[in-house]
Amino acid sequence: MVLGHCVGVFSIMALKNKKSENFTEWYLELVEAAELMDYSPIQGCMTIRPRAYAIWETYQGLLNQKMRADGVSNAYFPMFIPESFLVKEAAHFEGFAPEVAWVTKGGNEELSEKLAVRPTSETIMYHHFAKWVHSWRDLPLKVNQWCNVIRWDTKTLKPFLRTREFLWQEGHTAHASENEADEMTLRALHWYRELCENYLAIPVLLGRKSEGEKFPGAKYTTTIEALMPDGKALQCGTSHQLGQNFAKMFEVKFKSAEETEQYVFQTSWGTSTRLLGALFMLHSDDRGLVLPPRVAPLHVVIVPIAKEQNDRGMVLAAANRVREALLEAKLAVHIDERTERSPGYKFNEWELKGIPVRIEIGMRDLAEQSVTVVRRDNGQKESLMENQLTLKIPALLEEIQKSLFEKAKNHLKANLRPASSVPQLNQILEEQKGFVFAGWCADPRCEEAIKEETGATIRLIPFEDAPAGACIMCGKESKATAFFARSY
Amino acid sequence: MVLGHCVGVFSIMALKNKKSENFTEWYLELVEAAELMDYSPIQGCMTIRPRAYAIWETYQGLLNQKMRADGVSNAYFPMFIPESFLVKEAAHFEGFAPEVAWVTKGGNEELSEKLAVRPTSETIMYHHFAKWVHSWRDLPLKVNQWCNVIRWDTKTLKPFLRTREFLWQEGHTAHASENEADEMTLRALHWYRELCENYLAIPVLLGRKSEGEKFPGAKYTTTIEALMPDGKALQCGTSHQLGQNFAKMFEVKFKSAEETEQYVFQTSWGTSTRLLGALFMLHSDDRGLVLPPRVAPLHVVIVPIAKEQNDRGMVLAAANRVREALLEAKLAVHIDERTERSPGYKFNEWELKGIPVRIEIGMRDLAEQSVTVVRRDNGQKESLMENQLTLKIPALLEEIQKSLFEKAKNHLKANLRPASSVPQLNQILEEQKGFVFAGWCADPRCEEAIKEETGATIRLIPFEDAPAGACIMCGKESKATAFFARSY
Repeated sequence: MVLGHCVGVFSIMALKNKKSENFTEWYLELVEAAELMDYSPIQGCMTIRPRAYAIWETYQGLLNQKMRADGVSNAYFPMFIPESFLVKEAAHFEGFAPEVAWVTKGGNEELSEKLAVRPTSETIMYHHFAKWVHSWRDLPLKVNQWCNVIRWDTKTLKPFLRTREFLWQEGHTAHASENEADEMTLRALHWYRELCENYLAIPVLLGRKSEGEKFPGAKYTTTIEALMPDGKALQCGTSHQLGQNFAKMFEVKFKSAEETEQYVFQTSWGTSTRLLGALFMLHSDDRGLVLPPRVAPLHVVIVPIAKEQNDRGMVLAAANRVREALLEAKLAVHIDERTERSPGYKFNEWELKGIPVRIEIGMRDLAEQSVTVVRRDNGQKESLMENQLTLKIPALLEEIQKSLFEKAKNHLKANLRPASSVPQLNQILEEQKGFVFAGWCADPRCEEAIKEETGATIRLIPFEDAPAGACIMCGKESKATAFFARSY
Repeated sequence: MVLGHCVGVFSIMALKNKKSENFTEWYLELVEAAELMDYSPIQGCMTIRPRAYAIWETYQGLLNQKMRADGVSNAYFPMFIPESFLVKEAAHFEGFAPEVAWVTKGGNEELSEKLAVRPTSETIMYHHFAKWVHSWRDLPLKVNQWCNVIRWDTKTLKPFLRTREFLWQEGHTAHASENEADEMTLRALHWYRELCENYLAIPVLLGRKSEGEKFPGAKYTTTIEALMPDGKALQCGTSHQLGQNFAKMFEVKFKSAEETEQYVFQTSWGTSTRLLGALFMLHSDDRGLVLPPRVAPLHVVIVPIAKEQNDRGMVLAAANRVREALLEAKLAVHIDERTERSPGYKFNEWELKGIPVRIEIGMRDLAEQSVTVVRRDNGQKESLMENQLTLKIPALLEEIQKSLFEKAKNHLKANLRPASSVPQLNQILEEQKGFVFAGWCADPRCEEAIKEETGATIRLIPFEDAPAGACIMCGKESKATAFFARSY
């Protein structure tokens, strides 16, 4: 804990590091100090603490609603996948094998075939799909799984953003036609976009991955990409059209209405607890966590302020009145009644923990039948009449939500820059960072060469692309406008 | 699938096996045919299909409500536990080591320390608790985790009831006093009892485990035990008072209000997807799945019956009216509009899948402004006026719920028998099965000897026990009334 004891002055900063000065240290301090995560004894694995997990549960509820309305059912598939399954789709195996954790012993016995701890579940799921799908009547089949996955990553690990174990959902569907699979791929991507933008207040770019960056085994991959405050891109969710690749390997076939036997067309799509990392990193500040109200587990904290012991009863009574009123307005409210902590200490603590609105109630407020309301996002303070709170606080929360999104959107917009040469691309990435778009001939060798020279990958190619000009690497005709960035 | 094509006669049984004749085969056929599970390629692991998983989600929602009201927060801890953690509490390690799956490789590299895939999370959680608890102000600490666990069991495996991977919740708490830990242990047990009885319609016995049957590392274990239709007992949930055993191993200490340093007192408690197995096994019949309405994902299926193509529009319109009305009454309703299936086929299918109430609407019903309503649990049919459905169907569902519970309770009550000698105990277990209660001197050697002779374990000792008479094994004074049973 970085909090001192009873500092009593709420202008003191809660974090030692500054977002604008030492971003990485600031983020690492933030997620630990705000009690969002804790390091585990296993390198690269982390514990997700209740304050962060509650947001994941909110996200689950929101996505479940969208999936349910579309006929996607939740299910659970085994975590252990036989090696022989994983190798069936060659590109898939090649993509995941270096990151697989292997179980080789059960109790005291060596296993006859080593088991992969799922890095993703295409293979085990489609083994089952083959048993469940027989006729066109069984299609579309749409299943989602909320679970943990393991990727024994050796890159730099970072809480939430890159951990060896993480939580995610993976949706998997099978369709009679490729057209339906195309539509499903995009539908899932738009669910992700909407949840990111309208709830997490994370603006994203949408597009398609290059061949080199697509999911191992997919026909094509679509993605949503966000921009972090340090100018690096963060992939927030992907949705893959798998074609018939896996269907052929796992024999997922159906009899059409015309009695012909056909392979299904498949999709898979996922989002993970990485989203939480994006959320925390994007909005928070030097005082600690900032959360968009729509996903904040707690909306309002009430701090009663009574210097004299005699005043405490009246102030607490008012706090309880306000709490009751706000509960009726469906808000989550906490009264900080602790007597062993000063108001200043409490202000700091709740700012660090990201409660969107603080209400202070003291004797002076009481005398005026008002309360003091403080916004977490910008620190603005105002006095509001107590009898107007049930209208004004929800409106204020919506304003905070909108304001966080607008701020992030402006940051994203201001960091989309064109480049017409590789040196220029590199210069922008060095000096201004963000996304840089440029012509690309679609040759993976140019993509690889740019990556080596600049450290940037193609994050996406916009869906409505009208390529013009030349490839910035080879000068040949451009086939796509590629959005480059350095990324997490 | 065991369903034939368009049989059209709904008296045909859906399952080949009979519950009363070949119980085990009946259960195995049931869970597969009703699309509740599927076998995985890894022996002992299974896939939980959407129809069963939806019930697990309902259970999660219900238990989450109870936990939230008590201040228990959900969180997520790493699945991999270093071997060095597991060995810290000796009894704990001894209890779990034979069933641990070990990860020994990450990517292509051998790990320096092998990692246990969690069989339970006491050790990893309390490592974190030690970092989070400093002062009496941090107590009580109450955390719950919904996750998968692995127990590489070599006993006979059975879908839902005994699988190597299963889903569960594990609640873990730390308290300043032993008294609080005692209370928490019982509070969690009563949550389980209430959810079992009032939602899953599974009556249970409550009590304490013997020393020999308690959780490895606990001070004592409490349990809820149900009786399955074949007369075997099934442990449905356990709640452990851990004393300070783990606290001492993991240094979970706090400064009391009097500034003295003390170890916390802890509890842990869990229920798993095994509950689903109990649910399916207990209520279902030769026609297939029977579900208590309060946990049924779908309450009502409407089968429109129109022999003439001309009638179809009118019948469907009525079905939609009924559906709308029932949706308003907060029921989950499905209209089976398929034209390629006969009504009889549909009846069979929805009975197999356990929809509590079927509504048939044909031209004759329409003429009388009524519908035909069929109960899944007992097959009773009645004609109800369409305009009374929003009142009568919810009442009927409640009646089904009550009736399933009463039936199970009567079965349990009728199978509690006393024994005054080991041969008598054995005879009851052979001929009538169920629970048998008898005097026990509390010596583990007598417990072991009875187990060897009869195959029965002590399932529990009632909380309000007034032991009388002699131990049925050694004849010494009885210290407890032990409830014996053969069990899953």
